[in-house]
Amino acid sequence: MGSIDANNVDLSTSSVGQFKPLEPEEFRKQAHTMVDFIADYYKNIENYPVLSQVEPGYLRDRLPETAPYLPESLEKIVQDIHKDIIPGMTNWLSPNFFAFFPATVSSAGFLGEMLGTAFNSVGFTWVSSPAATELEMIVMDWIAHMLKLPKSFMFSGTGGGVLQTTTSESLLCSIVAARERALESLGGSDNISKLVAYGSDQTHTMFAKTCKLGGIFPGNIRLIPTTAETNFSISPSVLRGIVEADLAAGLVPLFLCATVGTTSTTAIDPVNELAEIANEYKMWIHVDAAYAGSACICPEFRHHLNGVERVDSLSLSPHKWLLCYLDCCCLWVKKPNLLKRALSTNPEYLRNQRSEFDKVVDYKDWQVGTGRKFRALKLWLILRSYGVANLQSHIRSDVQMAKMFEEFVKSDPRFEVVVPRAFSLVCFRLKPFPGSNAAHIEILNKKLLEMVNSSGRIYIIHTVVGGIYMLRLAVGGTLTEERHVCAAWELIKEFADALLKEAS
Amino acid sequence: MGSIDANNVDLSTSSVGQFKPLEPEEFRKQAHTMVDFIADYYKNIENYPVLSQVEPGYLRDRLPETAPYLPESLEKIVQDIHKDIIPGMTNWLSPNFFAFFPATVSSAGFLGEMLGTAFNSVGFTWVSSPAATELEMIVMDWIAHMLKLPKSFMFSGTGGGVLQTTTSESLLCSIVAARERALESLGGSDNISKLVAYGSDQTHTMFAKTCKLGGIFPGNIRLIPTTAETNFSISPSVLRGIVEADLAAGLVPLFLCATVGTTSTTAIDPVNELAEIANEYKMWIHVDAAYAGSACICPEFRHHLNGVERVDSLSLSPHKWLLCYLDCCCLWVKKPNLLKRALSTNPEYLRNQRSEFDKVVDYKDWQVGTGRKFRALKLWLILRSYGVANLQSHIRSDVQMAKMFEEFVKSDPRFEVVVPRAFSLVCFRLKPFPGSNAAHIEILNKKLLEMVNSSGRIYIIHTVVGGIYMLRLAVGGTLTEERHVCAAWELIKEFADALLKEAS
Repeated sequence: MGSIDANNVDLSTSSVGQFKPLEPEEFRKQAHTMVDFIADYYKNIENYPVLSQVEPGYLRDRLPETAPYLPESLEKIVQDIHKDIIPGMTNWLSPNFFAFFPATVSSAGFLGEMLGTAFNSVGFTWVSSPAATELEMIVMDWIAHMLKLPKSFMFSGTGGGVLQTTTSESLLCSIVAARERALESLGGSDNISKLVAYGSDQTHTMFAKTCKLGGIFPGNIRLIPTTAETNFSISPSVLRGIVEADLAAGLVPLFLCATVGTTSTTAIDPVNELAEIANEYKMWIHVDAAYAGSACICPEFRHHLNGVERVDSLSLSPHKWLLCYLDCCCLWVKKPNLLKRALSTNPEYLRNQRSEFDKVVDYKDWQVGTGRKFRALKLWLILRSYGVANLQSHIRSDVQMAKMFEEFVKSDPRFEVVVPRAFSLVCFRLKPFPGSNAAHIEILNKKLLEMVNSSGRIYIIHTVVGGIYMLRLAVGGTLTEERHVCAAWELIKEFADALLKEAS
Repeated sequence: MGSIDANNVDLSTSSVGQFKPLEPEEFRKQAHTMVDFIADYYKNIENYPVLSQVEPGYLRDRLPETAPYLPESLEKIVQDIHKDIIPGMTNWLSPNFFAFFPATVSSAGFLGEMLGTAFNSVGFTWVSSPAATELEMIVMDWIAHMLKLPKSFMFSGTGGGVLQTTTSESLLCSIVAARERALESLGGSDNISKLVAYGSDQTHTMFAKTCKLGGIFPGNIRLIPTTAETNFSISPSVLRGIVEADLAAGLVPLFLCATVGTTSTTAIDPVNELAEIANEYKMWIHVDAAYAGSACICPEFRHHLNGVERVDSLSLSPHKWLLCYLDCCCLWVKKPNLLKRALSTNPEYLRNQRSEFDKVVDYKDWQVGTGRKFRALKLWLILRSYGVANLQSHIRSDVQMAKMFEEFVKSDPRFEVVVPRAFSLVCFRLKPFPGSNAAHIEILNKKLLEMVNSSGRIYIIHTVVGGIYMLRLAVGGTLTEERHVCAAWELIKEFADALLKEAS
């Protein structure tokens, strides 16, 4: 930027004058304006429909076909955000958002995001941003301590952790690290056709996608069937049978993904027993605890990670339930060298004495990309601003509100809780009644969902597990209070009344 | 969060009271504090060493081993940012940062980042955030227009674009889309052993890494040697020879990565001629224009993309040269269906009427992960706040300053420009002199780099191309003005004086 000599400038630009896109006082003024805009949005968020009510293509009709040639004022842009953007928002931070897993965020998370953005440090190597690398190492050890992970996952022990974007990236890096180790011991790349990966029919669909991305043959990805008998978690004996059949067929068990808290119903795979099998067959075992891992900072939930000392990698997404804005996924690995062997690059222009002689951590070798954001700051701000005590209280409060909703459902004879509640998600439905059949019940529940969501007053989603169509109410929105959960139940009951009256 | 009944709360948390991590007025207050902190940091950034001067492990000695149990005040945390974090920062936004490609950011980019963060919408499907999806489609078309891409890359035509994290992600998605198409036409996954990918020895190292991630056999990744004769760009005839040898050996040419603006020297592969070869052999051709693509919004640089109408995909990172904070990579594809065929998932809980009946864009099927940030906002804010005119002016100003530095180097008989300058990067060195030899010259240049960087006053890096060790000065920092480039040259000359005096 800057003080360019007007004589050297292309004539076509001379009309726009000297362009300074980061003048500190202008930055200050505009950023203060945006802070107020955002604080007001949070303050008024309950006034907006949770689920956007616009039709596909709504925005193309409102915006010009090309970018403006000349600048427009911030005032005008902010008007357009109100007019054109907000109506198209499905408001994830609304206290009446109970879909998927709601977004848990926080002021401290926002401050950390602002600061990490502002530094804009691209910490691919240690030297390119020592603070970003070292704070990430420390924060990953801090969270490992909070989860009571063994030293084998900590930098202060023999392992270590890295912050990535999403669970998909964490899984991809783990699968490829496992794949490279296996191909090496099998004697070459041609053996890729033999490698088999295991999850369950409840494992997040990104698991199969990620396996495919990593070159695992689609025919070698096993999604083990689960049943209500194990609350839709992987049965160790079923897994063992499938692994042994693969071995007998000359295949090589490579990778097992266990989930602590599946997306549909928060089912919990038995980590300890699955790790035993994985260890026995020399498979890499990864624990995907994207959502429920955060609950394990509370002693009463920690047992879900029992056996973690025998797994190879573990991921948890603080943007799901640890008050962190998107995107942020923690990945811990027991053997960082296996990650590095699969993922390292060494271009001349990134060579430096620190990396060559000091054995520092260069996080580019722990992830998919080269560039990376300073994500550790937001976690550091959250951990320090709230302390472990408040973070535990936050988890317990959400669980408590889900329990309350569960009681509401149980107390109404027209409804049932379909799958036992484990954390802050309740899976429920209008239950079968004398004279109804399965198809009829499914249609009723679909109608109920449609009525509830099109009201714009709350947002919930459905799932189908074990052949049963059910509704999911997930508590977790940062702004959600008891009164919102109570109102959600009243709304659901109200629509159920109308629906059942009409049906009878 | 919220009004939890004290009787239901674990005793260990009762001391922390009611926890409200996103109370709008507290958010407002704290965010204003952080805005002032950041504006002051930008204002004073020249006072900090560009390259951090700390030693490895500096931070572990300063921070506690575990996260605090109880909250700490923002005041205390901000003090620690000054005391512990900033000294460990390599300050990428310093106007004296000339390493890698400097970070170009802007106030508008920051506002967009704030707003996108604040909404925290997880736009995996259209319905989960219509505004996020539709604004992204519009902004991708806007930038496509600015680059004069053909309609075949636009939603308003037959293609479309998506915002991803990094070039690595864009390449991985493209490679896997190409791979799936090839395996299908070859009759199955077993043919993966035959697939060959081509780049050059100047292609970013993440290319080979990404091919490996995507299951391409390491022995099938060709890095075509380049020479000074073509300014280190791929020679079409050399490529053709290698492709034909692979075909003769029974292999299948799959993927070609052409780079417009390599990292070492901003070499420019001839897109049009390479596309002709790729089309002839039915390879997928991707153009990686991470850095230099932004320059192509100026008519005088657009010719570097000539032939783009014949390529399959193109990526460009606005966080490199289009005033955008990390992370942001634009990927355009000609046939979105090929991406979707390789990357789509369809879990029950994401099924919705819009996706099934309205044929909306669900961006989860265009990327590695499922969750995704609202990245389009920052580009929209940048494009509208500055207009195309100012963005062109920004590119030209950086190029102009690089030209000025190039003239400085050329005017000093002790130095030489090693590779012709194409954009805003100058590759130079202390040149050979009577009585010197290659090893000696390399040592002198290494020493010069070491002296310059350890001063903390500027930061530049080296590269080695065609066997020659050279220094790189890349102009592009948003706060960089002519005076900084002049001072950088004075500093380099000053150290060269000392070095050559000592050497003589």
